[in-house]
Amino acid sequence: MPDNLSDHRYQVALANRMLANEGVLDAFGHVSIRHPTDPGRYLLSRSRSPAVIEADDILEFTLDSAPVVAPTVALYAERVIHGCIYQARPEVMAVCHHHAPAVMPFCIAGVPIVPVFHLGAAGGETVPFWNQRDEFGDTNLLVVKPEEGRSLARALGPHGAVLMNNHGATVVGRDLRELVSRSIFMCQNAEYQLKAKLLGDVATLTAGETRLASTLNALPNVTNRTWEYWTLRLDKAGGLPPQAAAKSSASKPKARLRAASAKSGASRKTVAGGKSRKKGKAR
Amino acid sequence: MPDNLSDHRYQVALANRMLANEGVLDAFGHVSIRHPTDPGRYLLSRSRSPAVIEADDILEFTLDSAPVVAPTVALYAERVIHGCIYQARPEVMAVCHHHAPAVMPFCIAGVPIVPVFHLGAAGGETVPFWNQRDEFGDTNLLVVKPEEGRSLARALGPHGAVLMNNHGATVVGRDLRELVSRSIFMCQNAEYQLKAKLLGDVATLTAGETRLASTLNALPNVTNRTWEYWTLRLDKAGGLPPQAAAKSSASKPKARLRAASAKSGASRKTVAGGKSRKKGKAR
Amino acid sequence: MPDNLSDHRYQVALANRMLANEGVLDAFGHVSIRHPTDPGRYLLSRSRSPAVIEADDILEFTLDSAPVVAPTVALYAERVIHGCIYQARPEVMAVCHHHAPAVMPFCIAGVPIVPVFHLGAAGGETVPFWNQRDEFGDTNLLVVKPEEGRSLARALGPHGAVLMNNHGATVVGRDLRELVSRSIFMCQNAEYQLKAKLLGDVATLTAGETRLASTLNALPNVTNRTWEYWTLRLDKAGGLPPQAAAKSSASKPKARLRAASAKSGASRKTVAGGKSRKKGKAR
Amino acid sequence: MPDNLSDHRYQVALANRMLANEGVLDAFGHVSIRHPTDPGRYLLSRSRSPAVIEADDILEFTLDSAPVVAPTVALYAERVIHGCIYQARPEVMAVCHHHAPAVMPFCIAGVPIVPVFHLGAAGGETVPFWNQRDEFGDTNLLVVKPEEGRSLARALGPHGAVLMNNHGATVVGRDLRELVSRSIFMCQNAEYQLKAKLLGDVATLTAGETRLASTLNALPNVTNRTWEYWTLRLDKAGGLPPQAAAKSSASKPKARLRAASAKSGASRKTVAGGKSRKKGKAR
Repeated sequence: MPDNLSDHRYQVALANRMLANEGVLDAFGHVSIRHPTDPGRYLLSRSRSPAVIEADDILEFTLDSAPVVAPTVALYAERVIHGCIYQARPEVMAVCHHHAPAVMPFCIAGVPIVPVFHLGAAGGETVPFWNQRDEFGDTNLLVVKPEEGRSLARALGPHGAVLMNNHGATVVGRDLRELVSRSIFMCQNAEYQLKAKLLGDVATLTAGETRLASTLNALPNVTNRTWEYWTLRLDKAGGLPPQAAAKSSASKPKARLRAASAKSGASRKTVAGGKSRKKGKAR
Repeated sequence: MPDNLSDHRYQVALANRMLANEGVLDAFGHVSIRHPTDPGRYLLSRSRSPAVIEADDILEFTLDSAPVVAPTVALYAERVIHGCIYQARPEVMAVCHHHAPAVMPFCIAGVPIVPVFHLGAAGGETVPFWNQRDEFGDTNLLVVKPEEGRSLARALGPHGAVLMNNHGATVVGRDLRELVSRSIFMCQNAEYQLKAKLLGDVATLTAGETRLASTLNALPNVTNRTWEYWTLRLDKAGGLPPQAAAKSSASKPKARLRAASAKSGASRKTVAGGKSRKKGKAR
Repeated sequence: MPDNLSDHRYQVALANRMLANEGVLDAFGHVSIRHPTDPGRYLLSRSRSPAVIEADDILEFTLDSAPVVAPTVALYAERVIHGCIYQARPEVMAVCHHHAPAVMPFCIAGVPIVPVFHLGAAGGETVPFWNQRDEFGDTNLLVVKPEEGRSLARALGPHGAVLMNNHGATVVGRDLRELVSRSIFMCQNAEYQLKAKLLGDVATLTAGETRLASTLNALPNVTNRTWEYWTLRLDKAGGLPPQAAAKSSASKPKARLRAASAKSGASRKTVAGGKSRKKGKAR
Repeated sequence: MPDNLSDHRYQVALANRMLANEGVLDAFGHVSIRHPTDPGRYLLSRSRSPAVIEADDILEFTLDSAPVVAPTVALYAERVIHGCIYQARPEVMAVCHHHAPAVMPFCIAGVPIVPVFHLGAAGGETVPFWNQRDEFGDTNLLVVKPEEGRSLARALGPHGAVLMNNHGATVVGRDLRELVSRSIFMCQNAEYQLKAKLLGDVATLTAGETRLASTLNALPNVTNRTWEYWTLRLDKAGGLPPQAAAKSSASKPKARLRAASAKSGASRKTVAGGKSRKKGKAR
């Protein structure tokens, strides 16, 4: 189904730009999804800054992180992060690696990020800390070797995200929208946690609250609302990915935004198999 | 008076977008007003991100937070916050629930927000702290049950705002403009309080200063000036709510801004019954 | 010379908008200049948010802060700040009162702002602290009575600025450009001082360095460069004051910016009587 | 080769605007490159705010910081910083002096900036601290005398950057792109280091990690990617330098961006003599 895959490529480009627009990604960082019909492959951009990625930049990789078609363009050196996690976590459908300013102080001080507000529960009760030095000694801190990727995946374990010493974070999701929400809310959580610490004692959510709130956060009506919101903000900033050339009718902002939302909905159904409830339950 | 109510709907949409533009609301949070002629009802948007709310999104609810007309759209789950406060506080004409980044550190550290500058007195001398856990144990931290809403309203008591543990704040006003001012100035106050604490000892206003300054802050000439300012900033950001289709002459920015101000003035007179003094007393 | 005064009115409007654009002023705060040919009067806007002030808003006041012409519009309540300082300090040609976020933590913690970098020397070696409570007890913290204005002017003494408890700051200059530079650099100084304190011990400039650096900062080639820079930023943000209706040829951005600079230059020569040195000495 | 030099002039203007757009430069600060074919000269703008510099503003200077052609415009007073470093460090091809807000707290507290994340390794293991007071006593803190420039160059030694007490920083690079990357990443590093300190103990990179990561950061595929990213951001902000009048076809944003990138590539090959590797190694 070639048309369907082009929708997925568009969604991955959109998620990259959305996370760049929200300050999670900058010149670096990348977002992938597992191939929607072949769980042994994933979709990731060629090496580009997230803010400029287009659907056509999204390539297919095996879970060994080898490109399915011999590339004519540069590839991300750290793509083993994606491949090794998709190998270790069959239920993970989307992965993001980033160096967001909000998490860096935690990656440097080695202080755990803990859930401090209801949306921050999206990150889960525990965000493990992976110290590349423990196993690999002095490196340039990039995760480029398969054994580094596997070690990182082991540290991630069953969790939603993992911090990487002096480097950044890697976040996973059961679909692209959960991934984007979790990445953004984890950054907000980190900022609030740091400031709360400056004020006094940090009160974290209980295990029960974290479980209940994170269940809520993953409901389609919540992730759909935030997806619409972040798409709108991206569109206002003039940052939506270009549509395919044939769809020239979608060139005006309003039309492009409508197209982005429509595509989002379509893609979501395919990826997560869910169906959004739309009445009386959203926040 | 159907035309008058459409003005009120426009004002609620405007307040939502204004507070989003000033960083109080984001994908979440909501603003309501009590129905201008039926104190047993309130006006609140369907479930949408505040930045995109339009006049047509504003629906009527009874004080039990039931929609007056059976809805065909999603509703906010937390609307009991509004209904329960309108029940408990007859003089309250407007309510805002938000998760502003400025207040979150206080909601997490459990540190009281106290008035530290003259405009911050808008929040009042005491902002009580409601810990949902005390009465309801582990929840997802949303306020969705009537008994949760009533408990929150009890904690609010006669005050202008209440902090909610690991969640956000709820603010009330005697009219929409006081609500918006109080919400924004309380956020500024929180930011200054945190930074002052990093510098040294925080000097708070005395009870007398708080009373005198908050009286001043509620004067129409002050709330009118800030309302014009925040409307202007929203307009510059391209964020004013769309006018009704018939008013097509109001499509240019200047005309739209004029319309927004005019409506604001009209609405204010109706809501607060006041009359702005315009000479020699504004700051 | 009616034409000349309209240039001055334009400059005051421009300075208000510039300081709003740089985050010193918001919905509140105001900038005045002493009347260029009558030292017994000053020029100040009617009560408006600084970002929207136009040349036509600028009115004349006596040093008792009475309007020269009976006003048909609202006036700032705190204009005695300006009048009392012009009375006490004959060499002061421009005054700004503001609540900039950068200085508020110092006004609340009662910690002195001290010069910590070469441009911060613009604020002078000492910024005194005026506590309104000492002399007037509980007030709404506004400075509205002549005796309050005189008390503030006494606290200012011979210095370039004064902090006001839980309220803000008042800054003076020997001309409008010095005032604007001093206001902005004092805010930057305050931000750096707070962050330096979080890092370790704050090293201040010596008295000699402060004197030498502040002399440098007041040179026309420095204040002209920053004036051009802040004008450019204001223009980029679409915030220049409108030109008089007759000058319709100046409607395009480039032309408007040129006009703003030209006017600035003209005005400067008149106000300060100086002549900019343009060769080999700017930084 | 006159045409080639005009390309270099354009690159210097572009770098100035890029660093202004990323918050490293403001009304002050300057970027130079060594003359591409005459190592006894360097190229630096006339005295202007970096955000408005154009190719035609870039002038030639000898390493004694004397203009090659008698100037008709104002020059930067601190140009000895550039000349003295080019004299002392033959391999240095580009120099930036700035007062970025991110580094100022370190210049004031006298706390060393140390590499705390992989990209921050661009600053090198050691950033020395130069205290102008030690050798020159009370000054206005500007570096204007040749002996001050030489003292600063001695303090810089073989390192990539030097902090200047209560003033700012000076950064060097083996080409313009390395300089820009190092300047920006050093600022990010400083911000993360300050926040990590507020959280707990700051873990720095080891000497080995710093060496490995800084080698990586200087690879053309990394500096090209960031250069494209920062150019894109500058273009979005409407800040690209104007093209020469003859190239009127390059007036649309897309064309201008293409021109900026093309020029960048051309220039890079000339300056660094390198050739970008484009396949399979970028991050």
